[in-house]
Amino acid sequence: MHVTETAEKIKRMEIRGAGRIARAAVEALIGHAAGLSAPDLPSFRKGMEEAAAALLATRPTAVSLPNAIHLVLTAMEDAGTVVEAREAVKSRGETFLRSSAEAVHRIGEIGAHHIVDGDTVLTHCNSEAALACILAAHRQGKEMKVFATEVRPGNQGLLTLRVLSDAGIPTHYIVDSAVRHFMSRIDRVFVGADAVTVNGAVVNKIGTSQVALAAHEARTTFIVAAETYKFAPRTILGELIEIEERDPGEVLSPTEAARLPHVRVHNPVFDVTPAAYVDLIVTEEGAIPPALAYLIIRDYLGWSLKEFHKTFLIDHRDQV
Amino acid sequence: MHVTETAEKIKRMEIRGAGRIARAAVEALIGHAAGLSAPDLPSFRKGMEEAAAALLATRPTAVSLPNAIHLVLTAMEDAGTVVEAREAVKSRGETFLRSSAEAVHRIGEIGAHHIVDGDTVLTHCNSEAALACILAAHRQGKEMKVFATEVRPGNQGLLTLRVLSDAGIPTHYIVDSAVRHFMSRIDRVFVGADAVTVNGAVVNKIGTSQVALAAHEARTTFIVAAETYKFAPRTILGELIEIEERDPGEVLSPTEAARLPHVRVHNPVFDVTPAAYVDLIVTEEGAIPPALAYLIIRDYLGWSLKEFHKTFLIDHRDQV
Amino acid sequence: MHVTETAEKIKRMEIRGAGRIARAAVEALIGHAAGLSAPDLPSFRKGMEEAAAALLATRPTAVSLPNAIHLVLTAMEDAGTVVEAREAVKSRGETFLRSSAEAVHRIGEIGAHHIVDGDTVLTHCNSEAALACILAAHRQGKEMKVFATEVRPGNQGLLTLRVLSDAGIPTHYIVDSAVRHFMSRIDRVFVGADAVTVNGAVVNKIGTSQVALAAHEARTTFIVAAETYKFAPRTILGELIEIEERDPGEVLSPTEAARLPHVRVHNPVFDVTPAAYVDLIVTEEGAIPPALAYLIIRDYLGWSLKEFHKTFLIDHRDQV
Amino acid sequence: MHVTETAEKIKRMEIRGAGRIARAAVEALIGHAAGLSAPDLPSFRKGMEEAAAALLATRPTAVSLPNAIHLVLTAMEDAGTVVEAREAVKSRGETFLRSSAEAVHRIGEIGAHHIVDGDTVLTHCNSEAALACILAAHRQGKEMKVFATEVRPGNQGLLTLRVLSDAGIPTHYIVDSAVRHFMSRIDRVFVGADAVTVNGAVVNKIGTSQVALAAHEARTTFIVAAETYKFAPRTILGELIEIEERDPGEVLSPTEAARLPHVRVHNPVFDVTPAAYVDLIVTEEGAIPPALAYLIIRDYLGWSLKEFHKTFLIDHRDQV
Amino acid sequence: MHVTETAEKIKRMEIRGAGRIARAAVEALIGHAAGLSAPDLPSFRKGMEEAAAALLATRPTAVSLPNAIHLVLTAMEDAGTVVEAREAVKSRGETFLRSSAEAVHRIGEIGAHHIVDGDTVLTHCNSEAALACILAAHRQGKEMKVFATEVRPGNQGLLTLRVLSDAGIPTHYIVDSAVRHFMSRIDRVFVGADAVTVNGAVVNKIGTSQVALAAHEARTTFIVAAETYKFAPRTILGELIEIEERDPGEVLSPTEAARLPHVRVHNPVFDVTPAAYVDLIVTEEGAIPPALAYLIIRDYLGWSLKEFHKTFLIDHRDQV
Amino acid sequence: MHVTETAEKIKRMEIRGAGRIARAAVEALIGHAAGLSAPDLPSFRKGMEEAAAALLATRPTAVSLPNAIHLVLTAMEDAGTVVEAREAVKSRGETFLRSSAEAVHRIGEIGAHHIVDGDTVLTHCNSEAALACILAAHRQGKEMKVFATEVRPGNQGLLTLRVLSDAGIPTHYIVDSAVRHFMSRIDRVFVGADAVTVNGAVVNKIGTSQVALAAHEARTTFIVAAETYKFAPRTILGELIEIEERDPGEVLSPTEAARLPHVRVHNPVFDVTPAAYVDLIVTEEGAIPPALAYLIIRDYLGWSLKEFHKTFLIDHRDQV
Repeated sequence: MHVTETAEKIKRMEIRGAGRIARAAVEALIGHAAGLSAPDLPSFRKGMEEAAAALLATRPTAVSLPNAIHLVLTAMEDAGTVVEAREAVKSRGETFLRSSAEAVHRIGEIGAHHIVDGDTVLTHCNSEAALACILAAHRQGKEMKVFATEVRPGNQGLLTLRVLSDAGIPTHYIVDSAVRHFMSRIDRVFVGADAVTVNGAVVNKIGTSQVALAAHEARTTFIVAAETYKFAPRTILGELIEIEERDPGEVLSPTEAARLPHVRVHNPVFDVTPAAYVDLIVTEEGAIPPALAYLIIRDYLGWSLKEFHKTFLIDHRDQV
Repeated sequence: MHVTETAEKIKRMEIRGAGRIARAAVEALIGHAAGLSAPDLPSFRKGMEEAAAALLATRPTAVSLPNAIHLVLTAMEDAGTVVEAREAVKSRGETFLRSSAEAVHRIGEIGAHHIVDGDTVLTHCNSEAALACILAAHRQGKEMKVFATEVRPGNQGLLTLRVLSDAGIPTHYIVDSAVRHFMSRIDRVFVGADAVTVNGAVVNKIGTSQVALAAHEARTTFIVAAETYKFAPRTILGELIEIEERDPGEVLSPTEAARLPHVRVHNPVFDVTPAAYVDLIVTEEGAIPPALAYLIIRDYLGWSLKEFHKTFLIDHRDQV
Repeated sequence: MHVTETAEKIKRMEIRGAGRIARAAVEALIGHAAGLSAPDLPSFRKGMEEAAAALLATRPTAVSLPNAIHLVLTAMEDAGTVVEAREAVKSRGETFLRSSAEAVHRIGEIGAHHIVDGDTVLTHCNSEAALACILAAHRQGKEMKVFATEVRPGNQGLLTLRVLSDAGIPTHYIVDSAVRHFMSRIDRVFVGADAVTVNGAVVNKIGTSQVALAAHEARTTFIVAAETYKFAPRTILGELIEIEERDPGEVLSPTEAARLPHVRVHNPVFDVTPAAYVDLIVTEEGAIPPALAYLIIRDYLGWSLKEFHKTFLIDHRDQV
Repeated sequence: MHVTETAEKIKRMEIRGAGRIARAAVEALIGHAAGLSAPDLPSFRKGMEEAAAALLATRPTAVSLPNAIHLVLTAMEDAGTVVEAREAVKSRGETFLRSSAEAVHRIGEIGAHHIVDGDTVLTHCNSEAALACILAAHRQGKEMKVFATEVRPGNQGLLTLRVLSDAGIPTHYIVDSAVRHFMSRIDRVFVGADAVTVNGAVVNKIGTSQVALAAHEARTTFIVAAETYKFAPRTILGELIEIEERDPGEVLSPTEAARLPHVRVHNPVFDVTPAAYVDLIVTEEGAIPPALAYLIIRDYLGWSLKEFHKTFLIDHRDQV
Repeated sequence: MHVTETAEKIKRMEIRGAGRIARAAVEALIGHAAGLSAPDLPSFRKGMEEAAAALLATRPTAVSLPNAIHLVLTAMEDAGTVVEAREAVKSRGETFLRSSAEAVHRIGEIGAHHIVDGDTVLTHCNSEAALACILAAHRQGKEMKVFATEVRPGNQGLLTLRVLSDAGIPTHYIVDSAVRHFMSRIDRVFVGADAVTVNGAVVNKIGTSQVALAAHEARTTFIVAAETYKFAPRTILGELIEIEERDPGEVLSPTEAARLPHVRVHNPVFDVTPAAYVDLIVTEEGAIPPALAYLIIRDYLGWSLKEFHKTFLIDHRDQV
Repeated sequence: MHVTETAEKIKRMEIRGAGRIARAAVEALIGHAAGLSAPDLPSFRKGMEEAAAALLATRPTAVSLPNAIHLVLTAMEDAGTVVEAREAVKSRGETFLRSSAEAVHRIGEIGAHHIVDGDTVLTHCNSEAALACILAAHRQGKEMKVFATEVRPGNQGLLTLRVLSDAGIPTHYIVDSAVRHFMSRIDRVFVGADAVTVNGAVVNKIGTSQVALAAHEARTTFIVAAETYKFAPRTILGELIEIEERDPGEVLSPTEAARLPHVRVHNPVFDVTPAAYVDLIVTEEGAIPPALAYLIIRDYLGWSLKEFHKTFLIDHRDQV
């Protein structure tokens, strides 16, 4: 698939989910590198950076996208020739694709430890990593009940229902506003993340912070399942994660909206859960408290502060 | 309209909203009394009590229904003849209808004091009394913005949007799970109540307790607008308010549900907001802190403990 | 039993429990009145007041004692002769004995509403009124599990175990320090009270406030079962409830203590749970939020402020 | 002492306390290595691993045990011969024994800084490290009062009393349930730890989390004194610390239990204090906030994630 | 002193303090009534109401002013002649003056019970009623230390220092921003009130809510001493207490302000402490929890809802 | 300027502010090294250490002082001759001076990201680093309002007013006790730090912890701007930051004090804000959560635990 086509599909949410977006972008870059003929290394790099910029511009919140692209592009650093650079992109990209899949698997294994036989678990939205924990616990033979929310306006709760029902896990389906009502029956909450900031705040599907608040109020454990490439390096520099707003038509039909001149729809896709409401973040490198997000960025992502001064990223700062 | 027909419409939610239900029931009782011919006073009373029982059986949560019916039936206490009893029902019933309308008006006036020029107000669901406060403040010329929630699965938020838009009040529409995300911009929350218990807990549309929790977290004032006949006398005796569950089909289509054998839908219509999250309850008799709900029941509703020992109510206890 | 003998038994805790103490004192006063021959009404009153003073001096914390004695002594107010006074003491005293027993029964009925089928309930110490709620719910066929604490140093938990085991209720026994560890499994806590102050604070067996704090942290409902005569009128005047300290030997054996010259044992019998941690107080006059303790004192106990200026009580103030 | 004998004594709690258990196990391993004749290195290793497994199986909660054993066994890694392996075990083991004693001393010095002249300190259970802080402050001439709890059912509070009384420190002895009652007089709480998890939760003697909650409520500083080898590496992988349950007979005599067929005793030895209630953890490597437990594991214990994949530990996973 | 002169002095804060203002206004009204000659009762009433309006217009926050004036004016209700009306004003006014002085005395006696020997008490601003509690406890021989704040910008703390120093009570003087720093040493906070609303919120000198928050955080008892005539009846109708803003020059000298064109000074005199941070309100009618403010208004002030519909007050609504 | 003169000026607060103090001390040391003639390296070192000791003794709280001095002195470690040592002091000192200025600039850039167009920001005291964030956001064209406090008793708020007014930023000036009253209008608080401890507690101008508490209560973001050399290495060893008390005459005039024999003034210059109330610390090395203060000390300040055992610092421990 061409870079342009991939970018288009990400923008239209045909490809979606932080992990899937990252993997699609990396595949597009590998493909782009393979087909890109350039007279010299600088031109090749420039061509790759333009492709990266197009992909970066698609969606603003999920940091898996810039993180994955950064990883692949920096592979060219030590290349002396176009051929070496192309090979480096391919090799680093394929490593990413492989480790991205493995990460979900390892997170499932680690997270499953936190589910005890007989638990009632709640999940919000449709996170690969959060579901991996639930499914791994189920495979280990632990009896569980799961509460899943509807997740307006996209109704991603339905996707979650199908996964859980297919696995044979007894699942309860509730509207988003019923979370607190049922919280006293819940032993553990598992959610995913679109971005984790340097101070351990978790950016995830709208409603997550409300679930976390209700869990905190009731002393229910709140666990975030997130691959390390969802941690946001630039928040070390104070940058805020931009919260994407999508089409008002998802919430209020245009016909209805036309009749309501004084009404304006807000449709933020994500919200921010403060670190104080997060008990644990499960990554493929192990479980950590949210305060250690900085370490993940520095020691596992390998983005030191010096990285940030490189031209490439500075130039595309507005897309990040 | 016949008692049976009214009961049917309340059950099917063609008539809905705690105030409207109470008024419809009282009208039905007046009509029933007018048409009920009985050989003697005991037979007349029995006939009225049967009609009351049919109306009481329709919906379990809103206490406006038993409160209004109790008020009308106890009017027969001092009657010596069928004619006097019929007249007493008519007179007490009409007083109730009149004062119910006035109550909303007075609540609006009192509640409007708590809205300051420039305020941003949030409301959840579609409460006559809560909207009365907002509209009264608007008529006083105060500039306001209002946030209104969608209110899944019934989408009563749309009704609220129409009222506010018709009044020309700038309104923001959000999904239920976005409440906490926007809470730091909100100065005051106004909601209604389906029941207020003796310890000041507020039973209202599902999601209300979550809104209250988010308001409490952010030091945003949370105000409940409730006519005195929404206070629940029987909670003095320890009775819990039954939380009505409605058709799962409102949340998950039967077709979809059929494909998901391990999924069960919960569709509670109400939840319970603890008194600790309620700053003020505005009634037509004045604003009170939630801890004084008991006084409203005792001094304004006039239901002393002795009332509870009367046969009539004991007999229908299961419907209350 | 003579007044002196009763006083002695109360002091040595052969008679104990706030309700039992009050009933024993009232029986002693009735007996004393019956046997007291006096030349005139003032002498009779003086004799009764001396008996009252002896009983009041036995234990400082439980207000059931001064409340019951006050009730009986004030019965003499309208008496014109010794015979009338004696009769008034007898009649008022017997009324108290009867209504004290009925109160526990009604509290059980009201409190049982708050236990739902399948609940896990925790109780601390050995309260007649709290157990009445649990037993009433059990008789109604509700399935329950109960957690009971050991209650050091008196080990009253054993008495509770016996009552629950005799009733066939599955009971879990834990040390006092394990309460928070198990709190997330508990749906409801029921405890009694030795005194309730005008601002709704509950004086009860040492450890109660710690249980309440853990319940509050976990959003577990905390219910106090208390007869109205356990509310403390003098706290309206700002008087603090004195917390009784008992023999250090209950905690540390004298032999051991002798070897530990730098060690001092504190053995307070009660602690104070703030109203903010109490969800409901169940009295025989109905369930109320703790903030309404004042009303119970004023409207049900009937102790107005004027009462406090009467000589009799002022004279014995130090014993109260 | 033979490995079997040591294991037996640990199991029967003749040797107890997280530090003492670890040191006894290491001594037993040194002794075992000294006496173990093996034809080749693999057999020697196998012999040592069997001894380690026997020791690991004794008690499940305190991580000092697997940490110390791991330290000693991994010393064999670079050995080429049986003689070298035996020597490595001896050398590493003795280093551990020495540094374990020094660690308590250094913790005392660091922790004593947090005690101010005139302070009232509370301690729960009988922790070497926590007492080291109190004793060091006392030696520095700071005036202090100490509150010590009884610690049911093992009454370890008595051991603490003896240490404090011998040192001439004025000590107050209270039952476990009286902690909150006295908390407003307490300036600082010091406790030990049996395990510290990767997110800074502290596993310690049952009741500790209740003390921490009461300290948190009253803004009293809560300090944990813990040697670095009490931090639990495997919690990085999501493993939960197993909470040991001991003999019900410690809480309820078998005779009494026999009379109570519906009663079941729970006797958990430990509970879990969340990081949010811990102000500081004092280790021999310095004082840290609980969120940095991960760093202690990684940088001071030196257990990287790779360690966890080694056969030896995986095989005995169920004992850890 | 003439009404105009008194009004002027109140406005310029030569007469200040909620109690002193009320007493001065009542004296002025008695004087005005004595000197007011009117042809008939309506004219007399009109004259009195004009005088009342002038006094009401002086300061907006302290409700002692409208409460006292209301009390005096309503005394004319049953008068049939000018002479009777004049006499009624005099008699009711003198009763008020007497009971106002007694109220402070009784509050002192009740509040002193809540100070225990050895306590450290903090007070903010210069409240007659709060100091009465401290002085009464001192007279009872209780040893105390008091912390007093500076109270910028009016420095009323100095007045408090003088009272306490004259009484020989050891007093610590701190700046307003140091309250939280010293809070862990404080056992009890006593403050006064300029107004208490129907839901128990306390309007008092700026800074009070900050002191209350710090007390709440540290589990320090926070007590408000307030005569019943400081409770605000009109808050039952939802009216907010207006927070008076005074001259910016009190905070920033005009010379300095002239140099700072982008700077605006806010100088609110009062703030609002939520009921949740108030443990007890001590009135001359007894101590109550803040939730019962409504009862004080209804049962002791005797202002029923019907009162509010009287013309006189409606006319001057903007001054209240 | 001579070391003695600089020390004198720091003591008298002619030079003040944590950054300015550090820079002045470093300049003095460079000057001292330049003028210090010594027969051999040990004498030179001794001379430098005496100068350092004089500077360290001036003010106890701000750790910028010992941190900067430590940095400069340890530069002599690898020197073999007096000339090399003198040169090393000069070179390291000048590096410090340069990077100190750059640090404020970078903090401003990072912190400015956290100010959103339209924000209302509050600052307490007069911090270079906190103001740098506000000024940088202003330069980026973001519209802002700022609230600045008076900061008794030194009135440093005036300095802040001047900076903000000169920049043309609309500023509101309030007394310290009005912070909570205005907090609900505040989006973000920025303050500086005199010291940050190993567990993320922030020592700053008296009143800061009260501001933080009010921000926490209202869910307002609380950000600390602090150069890395304000982090306190010795707190790893458990040392507490000494809170400086200054002249009582700043709070109460000596004349007034003389008249008040029972009054004692406390004038602490700083207080301690717990990490739980700090959302983010912005350093020149990036933004971190407070829990990572330890990392800053270890990885950026480069003070390992071994450093602490060096003679030089141990000798002057009491001044640190």
